[in-house]
Amino acid sequence: MVAGAGGKSGEPSEKVLARIRRQLKECAEGLGGEVSTRLRAGRLAETYLSLDDAGRIAFLRMIALEFGPDPKRIAKAHEAYQAAVGTERQWDAEAQLRAAMRSSRIRILTQFNAIPQGVKFLVDLRADLLRFLEKDKELKSLDRELEARLTAWFDVGFLELTRLTWNSPAALLEKIVQYEAVHEIQSWRDLKNRLGSDRRCYAFFHPRMPQEPLIFVEVALMEDLADNVQKLLDENAPAADTDRATTAIFYSISATQEGLRGVSFGNFLLKRVLDDLKRDFPKLNTFATLSPIPGLVRWASKHPDEVAAAFTETDWKRLAAIGIEGPDSERLKPVLAGSHGWVADRPLARALRDPLLRTAAAYLLGGRRDSKAIDPVARFHLGNGARIERLNWLADTSDKGLDQSWGIMVNYLYDPDRIVTNVETFAASGEIDAAAGVKRLARR
Amino acid sequence: MVAGAGGKSGEPSEKVLARIRRQLKECAEGLGGEVSTRLRAGRLAETYLSLDDAGRIAFLRMIALEFGPDPKRIAKAHEAYQAAVGTERQWDAEAQLRAAMRSSRIRILTQFNAIPQGVKFLVDLRADLLRFLEKDKELKSLDRELEARLTAWFDVGFLELTRLTWNSPAALLEKIVQYEAVHEIQSWRDLKNRLGSDRRCYAFFHPRMPQEPLIFVEVALMEDLADNVQKLLDENAPAADTDRATTAIFYSISATQEGLRGVSFGNFLLKRVLDDLKRDFPKLNTFATLSPIPGLVRWASKHPDEVAAAFTETDWKRLAAIGIEGPDSERLKPVLAGSHGWVADRPLARALRDPLLRTAAAYLLGGRRDSKAIDPVARFHLGNGARIERLNWLADTSDKGLDQSWGIMVNYLYDPDRIVTNVETFAASGEIDAAAGVKRLARR
Amino acid sequence: MVAGAGGKSGEPSEKVLARIRRQLKECAEGLGGEVSTRLRAGRLAETYLSLDDAGRIAFLRMIALEFGPDPKRIAKAHEAYQAAVGTERQWDAEAQLRAAMRSSRIRILTQFNAIPQGVKFLVDLRADLLRFLEKDKELKSLDRELEARLTAWFDVGFLELTRLTWNSPAALLEKIVQYEAVHEIQSWRDLKNRLGSDRRCYAFFHPRMPQEPLIFVEVALMEDLADNVQKLLDENAPAADTDRATTAIFYSISATQEGLRGVSFGNFLLKRVLDDLKRDFPKLNTFATLSPIPGLVRWASKHPDEVAAAFTETDWKRLAAIGIEGPDSERLKPVLAGSHGWVADRPLARALRDPLLRTAAAYLLGGRRDSKAIDPVARFHLGNGARIERLNWLADTSDKGLDQSWGIMVNYLYDPDRIVTNVETFAASGEIDAAAGVKRLARR
Amino acid sequence: MVAGAGGKSGEPSEKVLARIRRQLKECAEGLGGEVSTRLRAGRLAETYLSLDDAGRIAFLRMIALEFGPDPKRIAKAHEAYQAAVGTERQWDAEAQLRAAMRSSRIRILTQFNAIPQGVKFLVDLRADLLRFLEKDKELKSLDRELEARLTAWFDVGFLELTRLTWNSPAALLEKIVQYEAVHEIQSWRDLKNRLGSDRRCYAFFHPRMPQEPLIFVEVALMEDLADNVQKLLDENAPAADTDRATTAIFYSISATQEGLRGVSFGNFLLKRVLDDLKRDFPKLNTFATLSPIPGLVRWASKHPDEVAAAFTETDWKRLAAIGIEGPDSERLKPVLAGSHGWVADRPLARALRDPLLRTAAAYLLGGRRDSKAIDPVARFHLGNGARIERLNWLADTSDKGLDQSWGIMVNYLYDPDRIVTNVETFAASGEIDAAAGVKRLARR
Repeated sequence: MVAGAGGKSGEPSEKVLARIRRQLKECAEGLGGEVSTRLRAGRLAETYLSLDDAGRIAFLRMIALEFGPDPKRIAKAHEAYQAAVGTERQWDAEAQLRAAMRSSRIRILTQFNAIPQGVKFLVDLRADLLRFLEKDKELKSLDRELEARLTAWFDVGFLELTRLTWNSPAALLEKIVQYEAVHEIQSWRDLKNRLGSDRRCYAFFHPRMPQEPLIFVEVALMEDLADNVQKLLDENAPAADTDRATTAIFYSISATQEGLRGVSFGNFLLKRVLDDLKRDFPKLNTFATLSPIPGLVRWASKHPDEVAAAFTETDWKRLAAIGIEGPDSERLKPVLAGSHGWVADRPLARALRDPLLRTAAAYLLGGRRDSKAIDPVARFHLGNGARIERLNWLADTSDKGLDQSWGIMVNYLYDPDRIVTNVETFAASGEIDAAAGVKRLARR
Repeated sequence: MVAGAGGKSGEPSEKVLARIRRQLKECAEGLGGEVSTRLRAGRLAETYLSLDDAGRIAFLRMIALEFGPDPKRIAKAHEAYQAAVGTERQWDAEAQLRAAMRSSRIRILTQFNAIPQGVKFLVDLRADLLRFLEKDKELKSLDRELEARLTAWFDVGFLELTRLTWNSPAALLEKIVQYEAVHEIQSWRDLKNRLGSDRRCYAFFHPRMPQEPLIFVEVALMEDLADNVQKLLDENAPAADTDRATTAIFYSISATQEGLRGVSFGNFLLKRVLDDLKRDFPKLNTFATLSPIPGLVRWASKHPDEVAAAFTETDWKRLAAIGIEGPDSERLKPVLAGSHGWVADRPLARALRDPLLRTAAAYLLGGRRDSKAIDPVARFHLGNGARIERLNWLADTSDKGLDQSWGIMVNYLYDPDRIVTNVETFAASGEIDAAAGVKRLARR
Repeated sequence: MVAGAGGKSGEPSEKVLARIRRQLKECAEGLGGEVSTRLRAGRLAETYLSLDDAGRIAFLRMIALEFGPDPKRIAKAHEAYQAAVGTERQWDAEAQLRAAMRSSRIRILTQFNAIPQGVKFLVDLRADLLRFLEKDKELKSLDRELEARLTAWFDVGFLELTRLTWNSPAALLEKIVQYEAVHEIQSWRDLKNRLGSDRRCYAFFHPRMPQEPLIFVEVALMEDLADNVQKLLDENAPAADTDRATTAIFYSISATQEGLRGVSFGNFLLKRVLDDLKRDFPKLNTFATLSPIPGLVRWASKHPDEVAAAFTETDWKRLAAIGIEGPDSERLKPVLAGSHGWVADRPLARALRDPLLRTAAAYLLGGRRDSKAIDPVARFHLGNGARIERLNWLADTSDKGLDQSWGIMVNYLYDPDRIVTNVETFAASGEIDAAAGVKRLARR
Repeated sequence: MVAGAGGKSGEPSEKVLARIRRQLKECAEGLGGEVSTRLRAGRLAETYLSLDDAGRIAFLRMIALEFGPDPKRIAKAHEAYQAAVGTERQWDAEAQLRAAMRSSRIRILTQFNAIPQGVKFLVDLRADLLRFLEKDKELKSLDRELEARLTAWFDVGFLELTRLTWNSPAALLEKIVQYEAVHEIQSWRDLKNRLGSDRRCYAFFHPRMPQEPLIFVEVALMEDLADNVQKLLDENAPAADTDRATTAIFYSISATQEGLRGVSFGNFLLKRVLDDLKRDFPKLNTFATLSPIPGLVRWASKHPDEVAAAFTETDWKRLAAIGIEGPDSERLKPVLAGSHGWVADRPLARALRDPLLRTAAAYLLGGRRDSKAIDPVARFHLGNGARIERLNWLADTSDKGLDQSWGIMVNYLYDPDRIVTNVETFAASGEIDAAAGVKRLARR
């Protein structure tokens, strides 16, 4: 794409780096007016796209390290600011300090916005940046500035809620298939079923990325709290009668843009979908999820004591009856590690039900990191004000479901009357709202 | 609207101020999660709208002065930053300092975005702020933060260029009538004429203010450089044959949102309109304006020497021939001050032509403020790379035209081959590109 | 447009007629396939547009008289048909007779559909035809065939009901101004008032004439039955509170396309508007018009006895008291003839109220032509199932209102419970549904 | 759906028939005004949909036989018409005769248009009618009237040409998959390939059947005349560079609505697609099809002499060399009857190439029915002005391709300079335009 863009597969030569540096400078200085600056930035964006990872790291490091603010100017402005604190000059001095802090980095990046698909370009560039950041902490300041800009651009006030249906463009639905992160979409038939008359699918879009759903949620309208995801996704099941639906089940939520990490809009999506559903189906009175517990088995393998504590004497008796003698049984170990075959062994599955549900409850209610719930999905919903309503045994018997949580799924319930309190309590103390039945399971 | 919002006409009582303060704090802290924070901000926005100016000043001062960053935290972060300069910790330290600088002000303001028409609300709030700022410098820091946010939101990458025609919604065209700032639109018939087959009208829109043109330009397609705006706006003139058009005249450019002062997109508008016109009419080879000179008469009244220098002996002879004896003539004075009647006196008008054109040239090429061209319209076009191509005598004989520039108008020419150079030269040295004829006029 | 299209102002020469004849034949025969036939028809349509009336008459007569069916072929098919009646061959024979009747006229006309705006072209051609038909009965067969085709094309199933608002394209609203046939729209401000929050305006469109409203109705949402159209159209009156509206007043209905005479869709418009209003404003319980009585004064001038019978002795006494002595009074005559000034004479106006309302009632309930109500507006509404609910004195004091009906207007009420019965009764016997008060007025 | 709609599975009882008859009469008479008539017709349409075939036949026969015109009235009007022929009363008399012929059938059918999806309902009803007509000739008159009305409604002037892309609604693309009649679409991936950057797909739509493509064509942009459909449909082949494309291959044309038989718009589709392609790709100079020969093998099996004549002595020698001795060979017979395996036998395939291509040429150029080309696809393209450009051996080796034409396909070429002449010649004399090479093949 870019002649002479570099040695092997896109890594830039010294000569190319020098050219890039010169162009970045011109962008930063704005020579030739905004219009030609943007044109130049457009060419730079193309250069970036033609580079391999090593080249991109060099490119981004150049922006991060060479176009930051001037420490001396900051020092001076800071001194003036501190001297003005408490006087009426404080506010002007603050503005001066802020001006001194302003770097050319964001100016350069923003100008990339000029190419077609410019916003998507910057979101993808941020995804690169996050990847590189793991090894190269010096990119952090650049990442923070870009995150702040993307946060401004992706303010929920700008997002459009769109309902996706079987009448949506095929190219868009194809993206839903690609981006679905919770329960893989197997085929167009599977997809059509998820857009049937008893289903809803909503996505947030940004006006400048009209072809890219940012986050989407799939909803089933039902008469009861769903307890099994395979049943829910069964293509051969008849569509439910939505006139009788009382319950909306959010069974899949997928964020799609890695580059928007830290820019949150999931809770708004749920809020607005909820409003939309209530308007269309006034009888709906229950809003809940049917959610995976992605970290359960992994956690269990690291906390054998917690698992052991979940098995009562009655449990062991039942297990002994089918030939499993104690925690070291060679039949039990692979189950706990997330193997699959045991589900078909119905007596075994029945005997494991109670202790594994107890383990799951202990994990959800007790597992902590930084005093937050340890499970990422739990953290998302509890942070949004949900409560843990019910655990469901053998609710997802796909390989993935057995791998990560022995097939257990959880219903998080959004009760409009409790959401605000829950958000505050969870934020303040990490305390988790859960139904009595779930708490009882967790107790031992 | 807001019960108990205050004493007379919207000024808030102490009690109301206390309530506002409490709500602002809740917004800033984000208690109850993003959703309920936004709801609260929505209510606050309504409160703001119900206040009178005194109330609004109190409201904005509260945000400006009480929700700024903490000087002590800044001092600490700054110390760490300066210590890290030159080490690899510099970039992380910079991010920390930036975090310390982050104020709650912008967070609060951004949340107002949640109300319907939220973007428009903030743009109008900025217009208030600019008004109040003239007397109250302590609002400056808040204004700068808001300007930065609006600059991010109104990045030209987000703006949509739309062609307005007689098929556009009447409600939108009505706004064009209201916002037209250069040559007032007299009636719907006048408007329809400006949207005729030999005209074009383009506007920039923001996706979240779909009913509000941000800036718009009116263009006439002609065979020659236009020299008279009344002729150009004549509703009874037949439409020109666009197949023969070689010249696009930008005869009116109006920015509409006071609250977006400092957020520039005028040059982009011209650039994109130019591209659009070239695609539709490949024969076009000249792009120019027919522009007012708003500051000429005012400047002349303050610089009598410059005016005097523009009158040659020949001029005085010609004037003497019609009974005007020297600069103190009682017939000349009101003319120079911007009176109207003299235009009908054709011998007088003929005698004044040369000296007044010379004065105009002197003003445009010589008048300076901060080494920039003094005329605001000239500054806009020269900054965008145009050149002063021609001065036109009696080109706008409306009262307004005579008031501000003795009816003189100017063609600024956008020559694609010179734009970049002009922008750079003008930016670097303030040097102005002008046609030989104009320079000659200015020479004495 | 057409070189050599003829002598003066478009009348075709013999040579041109011969060329037209040849082209019509080619169209009728379909030589060169459908595509080139349509191209040829397109050129013919252009020729037609370039002709003056005399030329167009010649053109249409040529189609009417030279491209009809073959009487001999009809005779033969008719004989076979009659012979087959009662046998199972009857239906095939009917199809054969129908085939023999098929003329090339409609084939030619339909092909004009190929030009852009083809449907509008044919509708306008029909308007020409109707005009010419008044003098030239030989065009009748052509007119009937075209009417049948237009009836098929403008089947209400194809029409789209569109609500017009201040956000509709200005070009479309301009047409509303032009086409309004009942209460002239004075200005864009007047128009905007008719599209205000307490108003509705609906139009029917055909998918192939997207810029042309076929018929439109203006509605006011009120708390009472409207009794005065000037009040209703007052631009300075505040908008009513639609939350309290119980009554929808259809105060203006205008059909726009002369060429669609005989193709009725007015009743469907009312039906669909009614449905739309009921959905948006569930509190609405009264649907009525405020209608003119266009034929009243004209009828009265031809039926002096009916007028005389409407004056009671009490009326004459009241008139005498203000100096008017009997029917031959020179002050009374011009009033009855539709003069204007008397309205300002309030005692006179008061004295005339009862006898003139009685005359109006007599006209509406008693005046007949072909056993149908004589007033065209009455015929439209009564035929659609309305009843005469109330007469309103000085309800339209515009010149037009005084000219045609002494300022009297009528409310036709659409009562969902009576519509079907009314339609049937009116169609069968011409019997008119009217409120007791109106009947009482008519009785003497 | 309809209570008491009849005995088994929808056949109507006498009682139901009586009710239907009564409702049809009410429709025909229009009692209660247009609005209630339409409502009634809507209910009748629902009744129709609830009936089985026997019920529908009864229903349609009732309309056909009981709502036709009155033979006596026709006789009288016919007598008056014949008497008026040659006088100026002829044209009025013709209109009278036409009025007498008008039946209530079409009025009833048209009113079905009132239900949602009314147009689609009538198209499907016509499909029923065509099916029943094969056995019940008495329905013919009804069919002809309905065909005439559908012809009016589906005039090409009303149809909208739409380009279908991967951004079209999935529900619409699904219909393309269902309706594709030439080369079955195997999967969404296959479909996406047919909508790729080097492909075009166009469909005609009627404004009242927005979800139903009436006819669609698939086009490939190439550098040469395509000679193999499997290659053309290969999902793994890279997209061609459309900048270099000179040739547009129409490789699939499918009409979708059985009920529109006799209403032709295929030629218009090709014409408009051609125009659209020429605008988008000015370099295109060749427009041709790659078409199947659906009747070849069937025809060959009935004309063994024609097949025998296509084998030269050289052919027999080549066949003898691989062990096939004469026309009665047991290895040759199944090939000629359309078996599949032989394609893999490359020496055999090579030996059969010439004689079978000769047979195909003989079929296309010589096979006749009613002096028209016998192959339906040939008839369509030749009637539209195409010429037979080239025969392609093993161009479609799918089972279907081998079954119907030994895998042979044909390129019909649309040469803008010859289309009109070809249409006329073919229409007048049935003479077929073919390339020299094809004619040579046919000669023996």
